[in-house]
Amino acid sequence: MLCLQTPTNTAWLDVAAGNIIAVMKDHAHCEKKAAMNALYLLAQYSEHDALVREMITVLEEETAHFKLMVGELAQRGHSLGRDKGNSYAKQLAALIRPNEPKRFLDALLVDALIEARSCERFTLLAGCEAIPADLRGIYHALMTSEEGHYLTFVRLAKEYFPEHEVDMRFHELCGEEASIVRALPNKPAMHG
Amino acid sequence: MLCLQTPTNTAWLDVAAGNIIAVMKDHAHCEKKAAMNALYLLAQYSEHDALVREMITVLEEETAHFKLMVGELAQRGHSLGRDKGNSYAKQLAALIRPNEPKRFLDALLVDALIEARSCERFTLLAGCEAIPADLRGIYHALMTSEEGHYLTFVRLAKEYFPEHEVDMRFHELCGEEASIVRALPNKPAMHG
Repeated sequence: MLCLQTPTNTAWLDVAAGNIIAVMKDHAHCEKKAAMNALYLLAQYSEHDALVREMITVLEEETAHFKLMVGELAQRGHSLGRDKGNSYAKQLAALIRPNEPKRFLDALLVDALIEARSCERFTLLAGCEAIPADLRGIYHALMTSEEGHYLTFVRLAKEYFPEHEVDMRFHELCGEEASIVRALPNKPAMHG
Repeated sequence: MLCLQTPTNTAWLDVAAGNIIAVMKDHAHCEKKAAMNALYLLAQYSEHDALVREMITVLEEETAHFKLMVGELAQRGHSLGRDKGNSYAKQLAALIRPNEPKRFLDALLVDALIEARSCERFTLLAGCEAIPADLRGIYHALMTSEEGHYLTFVRLAKEYFPEHEVDMRFHELCGEEASIVRALPNKPAMHG
């Protein structure tokens, strides 16, 4: 699946399917944070026209997904509730080197990785017969969208940095991401 | 105009009309910050269903306005460029009391005030013959939208706090806002 060096542990899917409301809530918060991240990136790097344009599209799509998931929760009698945080995303963010321009490159590649992992997990959820068919349809649609965002972040990285530098750093980060994923506790959360 | 205790200095409109590209760039950044603020509010107070719903709508609209203004700039051969900051909004944010639940009330009312002032200034821009007709049409549409957001923030304040507390605090903040506006330097910016 895309650039990922390790598949999600099969135990995660059982936990997720058995606690789908918890997964939906965490997923809604992930979409909110993805919208925030698109705004944050375009605010930080607003001198780059292509990045601004692409992040507006990502922002529109993540906002639509967030709204969709809040609506799906409401239909099932659930509120969004508090964000329980995302240790996976925090561990990846800690890998972003602090000084520019490396910070910019790493931010784009970490975003690409989160989109790729989300895409992989939506594929698992979409194919899981223990999950209601309407939700599986949503996960299938989101899978395609996340793959598009993954490609956007990698394309932007290659627009602003030499291809070999992007490839080398992405390979390193993919290795780190695989280690993080292997140590996840299989909680009912998008990246749990 | 709405709750405002002082009108914008007439000198501002001359400066704005004479430097409309600078105003458009600053305005685009204001829309971006309004979108961020909607996300920030719903993230901070995600246990309140009505607030989450209303902030999703505000987020959608501010994102659309941001995209519109970035497009209008591009059509005229200009990039978004760097955000020069907004001293008016920063001075208002400094009035937000630090402890909950007052912080929540003040955040809603400061947002209402920024929307009201923006609405007043869009009305001035929409009526200014020195500004191209297509832009005046956009400012007219935004004027209506900002008024809607003003009403949303006041309505939310009254949903979560007693009406007399909202009215009293809003009256105080409107007085502070008028003092801030009277001291503005009439720069070519939305709240300049």
